[in-house]
Amino acid sequence: MQLLKDMIQAKGRVLGDDILKVDSFLNQQVDTQLMLEIGKEFHHFFGQDEVTKILTVESSGIAPALATAMQFSVPMVFARKHQSVTTSDDNYSATVYSFTKKKDNQIFIDKHFLSTNDKVLIIDDFLANGQAVNGLMEICKQAKADVVGVGVVIEKRFQKGHRYLVNNNVRLKVLASISSLSNEKITFAE
Amino acid sequence: MQLLKDMIQAKGRVLGDDILKVDSFLNQQVDTQLMLEIGKEFHHFFGQDEVTKILTVESSGIAPALATAMQFSVPMVFARKHQSVTTSDDNYSATVYSFTKKKDNQIFIDKHFLSTNDKVLIIDDFLANGQAVNGLMEICKQAKADVVGVGVVIEKRFQKGHRYLVNNNVRLKVLASISSLSNEKITFAE
Repeated sequence: MQLLKDMIQAKGRVLGDDILKVDSFLNQQVDTQLMLEIGKEFHHFFGQDEVTKILTVESSGIAPALATAMQFSVPMVFARKHQSVTTSDDNYSATVYSFTKKKDNQIFIDKHFLSTNDKVLIIDDFLANGQAVNGLMEICKQAKADVVGVGVVIEKRFQKGHRYLVNNNVRLKVLASISSLSNEKITFAE
Repeated sequence: MQLLKDMIQAKGRVLGDDILKVDSFLNQQVDTQLMLEIGKEFHHFFGQDEVTKILTVESSGIAPALATAMQFSVPMVFARKHQSVTTSDDNYSATVYSFTKKKDNQIFIDKHFLSTNDKVLIIDDFLANGQAVNGLMEICKQAKADVVGVGVVIEKRFQKGHRYLVNNNVRLKVLASISSLSNEKITFAE
């Protein structure tokens, strides 16, 4: 997706060998035109799959997931990382290891919002080691919901997530694939 | 906003005298048609104000804020409640007391994403005691950004937020105003 790649080159910042900071258009400040185009791209790819729900995890996944859900005219559901007074006790949950925070987190989805009748498209902003996507797939398995595929805005191809999903026959659509962040240079995969 | 009030009556659940659970269409599962209409309503009200940024706080604010930003064709910025490896050190921050979690939280926004040239519309899913909105206004003050107004999807009129904002001459647009949740009954304000 050329608009996205252009923004990554123009505004992305490399921290170390494996962190790409894109919070000026994706992660904290969110470019609305970009979100619209992201939604259209995922709809173009998965539009024939009778998707009933778009699933993501808070917080950075919500914007691209909502923009995608708008194109499909289906609900967007996001897993929570924290429970509060208003959170249901009746949840599906999975453990997600965060490499940036270096700890295990639980993610939760109220059991009312996923069922065996759902055809789920998982959307996330980043695919690195695949922990978040894996947790969401685990939750779909608990709900006996069908996972149609996974759409990722940016993948770091040199980390484990891509290969893991492909090896498990998950249909994966990536909008920008990065093969290297070495020497503070952003290199896209072909 | 009739569509919203109808959804609240049909799908909202009252917990105790002051908690309204709307996670089947607003807070965890998000209705995309509703988000579209919410964005249009806020644009209808604030559309003449030369808004340059929509500001909210993660996570539940992101969906209505993005839908609104799409109508204005301006960026959406969300304050974070947690810092991570990729978070900047150069932040505006404010303290927000959470009544549901019964503790003080810090919220953060990277200084790059708000400036003295911005005309900010603050959007949030709920207005109760006004803590989150107040924290966002404090951050705008630090950035010397102009707050055009505050748009709230649902307010609990019987709590302190509404009066506080009106007393401080903040332009407030509320899409559904609830005057009471007593006896497990949802009563809208006139």
